[in-house]
Amino acid sequence: MNNVNFSPIPGGVCAAEGFTAHGIHSGLRKNTARLDLALIKADHVCSAAGVFTRNKVFAAPVGVTRRHLENGTAQAIICNSGNANACTPDGYATAETTCEALASALNIPADDVIVASTGVIGVSLPTEPIVNGIPALIDGLEHSESASDRAASAIMTTDTKKKEFAFSCEIGGRTVKIGGICKGSGMIHPNMGTMLCFITTDCAIAPAVLKTALLDAVKDTFNMVTVDGDTSTNDTVTVLASGDAGNAEITAASGNDYEIFAAVLGHLCKTLALAIAADGEGATKLLICKVTGAKNDEDARTLAKSVIASSLVKTAMYGADANWGRIICALGYTGCDIDTAKIDIAFRSAKGDLPVCKNGGSYPFDEDYAKEVLSENKIEILCDMNDGDCGAEAYGCDLTYEYVRINGDYRS
Amino acid sequence: MNNVNFSPIPGGVCAAEGFTAHGIHSGLRKNTARLDLALIKADHVCSAAGVFTRNKVFAAPVGVTRRHLENGTAQAIICNSGNANACTPDGYATAETTCEALASALNIPADDVIVASTGVIGVSLPTEPIVNGIPALIDGLEHSESASDRAASAIMTTDTKKKEFAFSCEIGGRTVKIGGICKGSGMIHPNMGTMLCFITTDCAIAPAVLKTALLDAVKDTFNMVTVDGDTSTNDTVTVLASGDAGNAEITAASGNDYEIFAAVLGHLCKTLALAIAADGEGATKLLICKVTGAKNDEDARTLAKSVIASSLVKTAMYGADANWGRIICALGYTGCDIDTAKIDIAFRSAKGDLPVCKNGGSYPFDEDYAKEVLSENKIEILCDMNDGDCGAEAYGCDLTYEYVRINGDYRS
Repeated sequence: MNNVNFSPIPGGVCAAEGFTAHGIHSGLRKNTARLDLALIKADHVCSAAGVFTRNKVFAAPVGVTRRHLENGTAQAIICNSGNANACTPDGYATAETTCEALASALNIPADDVIVASTGVIGVSLPTEPIVNGIPALIDGLEHSESASDRAASAIMTTDTKKKEFAFSCEIGGRTVKIGGICKGSGMIHPNMGTMLCFITTDCAIAPAVLKTALLDAVKDTFNMVTVDGDTSTNDTVTVLASGDAGNAEITAASGNDYEIFAAVLGHLCKTLALAIAADGEGATKLLICKVTGAKNDEDARTLAKSVIASSLVKTAMYGADANWGRIICALGYTGCDIDTAKIDIAFRSAKGDLPVCKNGGSYPFDEDYAKEVLSENKIEILCDMNDGDCGAEAYGCDLTYEYVRINGDYRS
Repeated sequence: MNNVNFSPIPGGVCAAEGFTAHGIHSGLRKNTARLDLALIKADHVCSAAGVFTRNKVFAAPVGVTRRHLENGTAQAIICNSGNANACTPDGYATAETTCEALASALNIPADDVIVASTGVIGVSLPTEPIVNGIPALIDGLEHSESASDRAASAIMTTDTKKKEFAFSCEIGGRTVKIGGICKGSGMIHPNMGTMLCFITTDCAIAPAVLKTALLDAVKDTFNMVTVDGDTSTNDTVTVLASGDAGNAEITAASGNDYEIFAAVLGHLCKTLALAIAADGEGATKLLICKVTGAKNDEDARTLAKSVIASSLVKTAMYGADANWGRIICALGYTGCDIDTAKIDIAFRSAKGDLPVCKNGGSYPFDEDYAKEVLSENKIEILCDMNDGDCGAEAYGCDLTYEYVRINGDYRS
């Protein structure tokens, strides 16, 4: 499905028909200039699906949302920053109180509310600022670009940029829009942040099919982002589908309509995932490792992630050092069945291509040109295993002094 | 076997009877002040065993040594620094030429030579400096502390300290000595370093039993060291046993004599492994994660390594930040079957103990006292899973600005 047509559109989480959003400062953060509570609301109940952290230590809102999505429907998303609501005795009570308060104000069932949190761990999340903030949140709901902006701002932690994208495509003769907001996976002082993503679409699609499409999209995008290898307690990706586009409901994970939807959802997730990788803590460079010629898809994913997660590769990229030995080494310690003597490695940036390794051995290159290629802010690391037809991409960033400062410098 | 008596002794790899060593500057390194070629020689053929990198991309000397140790005997070890002899077309020829030249000069079979290399990857290792250096290497062989020192210096890369230790114990009424030298697992610019360890003992022990003891010791020591999670192409640990102590040969991996030997070998490996961890690139602190109360040994090892390998934990320790959320998170994403609600976490240093998490939740502590405890240069991270009887320790170091500088700053 390479020839799917779609176009970028503004509006983020409000691009699709049937959705409103808002973001406020509720008081959870001390800094009154920072928004800390977001609401995304659908005009009516939606098909809904979610994917969550695989960490055994997961936050209360993850547990509550997982349960609320079991029936495949939801209508509203409430998300706070500043506190992860994780590892505290009253976490579930707080997450449930939040859902009930919002549901009551919106006159919807509590189990149609998705709740998420990000911020400090091990500190009880106060309910008052949230419950007291709900009327203002609802009052401010708008179907507008600026409303999506406010929601995107309210979920940020150490992110330096808002992350919101949307695309439109045609499905069954109708214009379908898919948009989303997300926040990064970098970790914040004094505790951990998280990767959160909320997607909305006006596509008509059955819950089970929506879930299949989401799982598939996440596997090749968000799951291929590695900023520091750590997996948070709160990671959450959800999608709400209102059906307001008026297309014939997609009821199977096959066929032309499904393929288009899945392709555009995948592209949205990739765009959001790349934005997260590029905005990794302290990052100066976006790194993309493209593995080709692997024996199977799983190996390809494992190989690409191993390269992108290596602290030695990440620091070498920070230093614009064409150190392919560290790359072949990272491919080697995956445990995948690879043939070293077949591996080709090259770097690619806006400045051009730089082959550095052929058949597992050194390939001569000019150090000055290498410096030029690797001094760009987006570097592709191309690893051709020459041993099959499968490929994968992984996304990450360089490891910098600034990462150490952000995560280590308690006193600042 | 907790009551094994043993004492530290000087002499490193020359502590045991029957061994001589030397280290020279052969010209592989440009800096003439740095030794770059080491020889360790036994007076006669020894029982021998080795453990090697599991990286699929392994260096030629690893391939050659693995083959030479198949028969369980060896008599000499030659090791160069400055070049890893990895990922080049002529690597095997060079490693074999080295073994043959040394074997011929010593009048021993080539397959009784252990060869190892560490340094730059992907650049052909020149044979001339090595072959030409062999007469001087042999001439200078001595059974002395300073000879072990020279060998230990010659295998160093970014190591800031020589690493050599030895212990004596009594086995079957005879004094048995076990000593070794090693170099760190930190990685060097412009290419990768490696973890190398050479152990000698005068214990009489059969090759197969020696191998069992070595595998067992390495599992809980060198394999539990994580500086940056990367596994080199050249990692090698070998042991030579001369039998000169005159004890009745140990022929089974059980019984009192074996238990004593295994305990002292294990202690030596742990001492060397801790020295590697403390001297990790840019490290300011030695970190030891002790997991207790785990369901089984494998889980305990996985949990301890996950904590010690987390970039977030490592930067928090650099910043003396009692950030237990990052620790419980690292325990959670191992995939081990753990019960969050049972986990207790504490920090320990020379300044005292600092409990920070009880039953998976926050435990109140004084921030000033925490700062004091965590500002020491040796920090234990104690994780009690309270869910079984098994435990493990992992060793590592903090992640610092200096690590990023060493590994990323091409221009310096």
